[in-house]
Amino acid sequence: MEKHELESLLEQADAAWNEEDINSILDTYDEDATLVVQPGMNVRGKQQIRKAVEAIFNHFNHTLCVKQRDITVIEGSETALVLARATISANQMGEAPFVQERKSTYVYRKKPDGRWLCVVDNSYGVDLLS
Amino acid sequence: MEKHELESLLEQADAAWNEEDINSILDTYDEDATLVVQPGMNVRGKQQIRKAVEAIFNHFNHTLCVKQRDITVIEGSETALVLARATISANQMGEAPFVQERKSTYVYRKKPDGRWLCVVDNSYGVDLLS
Repeated sequence: MEKHELESLLEQADAAWNEEDINSILDTYDEDATLVVQPGMNVRGKQQIRKAVEAIFNHFNHTLCVKQRDITVIEGSETALVLARATISANQMGEAPFVQERKSTYVYRKKPDGRWLCVVDNSYGVDLLS
Repeated sequence: MEKHELESLLEQADAAWNEEDINSILDTYDEDATLVVQPGMNVRGKQQIRKAVEAIFNHFNHTLCVKQRDITVIEGSETALVLARATISANQMGEAPFVQERKSTYVYRKKPDGRWLCVVDNSYGVDLLS
């Protein structure tokens, strides 16, 4: 099966997160996008997302590593629901390594110029229902 | 917390499914929406969704009952990721009753006239990754 362009985009996004390349990370979001920082805590809009991403980098002592696989794309009406298994790991100073497996859910919109941008970033998936 | 209008829409959609009111069901979808009928089987566009919904009614011997709760809405850029616990039950003739619990994922788009329409209906949620 041909690779969906959103698969490549998610791989590029992983690389940007792992390099702490905040401008490339922000380029993946639409202006009015929402990021679920943690269950019960959402931020909306690129300015708030920038602050949250910086806080996440600090929280993980700049050792965050994100790896997504089994990326599944369901498209409808210039919109896509993207599902992926995500492994989030970090080496926090003086503590045991942090490793978390998530089944993540993202929503992307195809803009008139053909670019896909993330409008809802919920790496926690349906665990928000717990 | 005030009830999100998408919560009311999902409750109305449940009622339409349970009454086999196919025109009201189709009114909840955008023209180019995608419905995940079962893992690995998607249909796209209202005409195909109509056929699939009729097939689902037949499959369950016209006893399908859908009930959604804990509806969680995450909005960004005129788009919403909606999560819900869904109970799907049916009394199939001569067989044990069918009951399935799902953690469902839906994507809605807000149209220029303010109406929300479903663009991706994936009641199986992240179970598609299994």
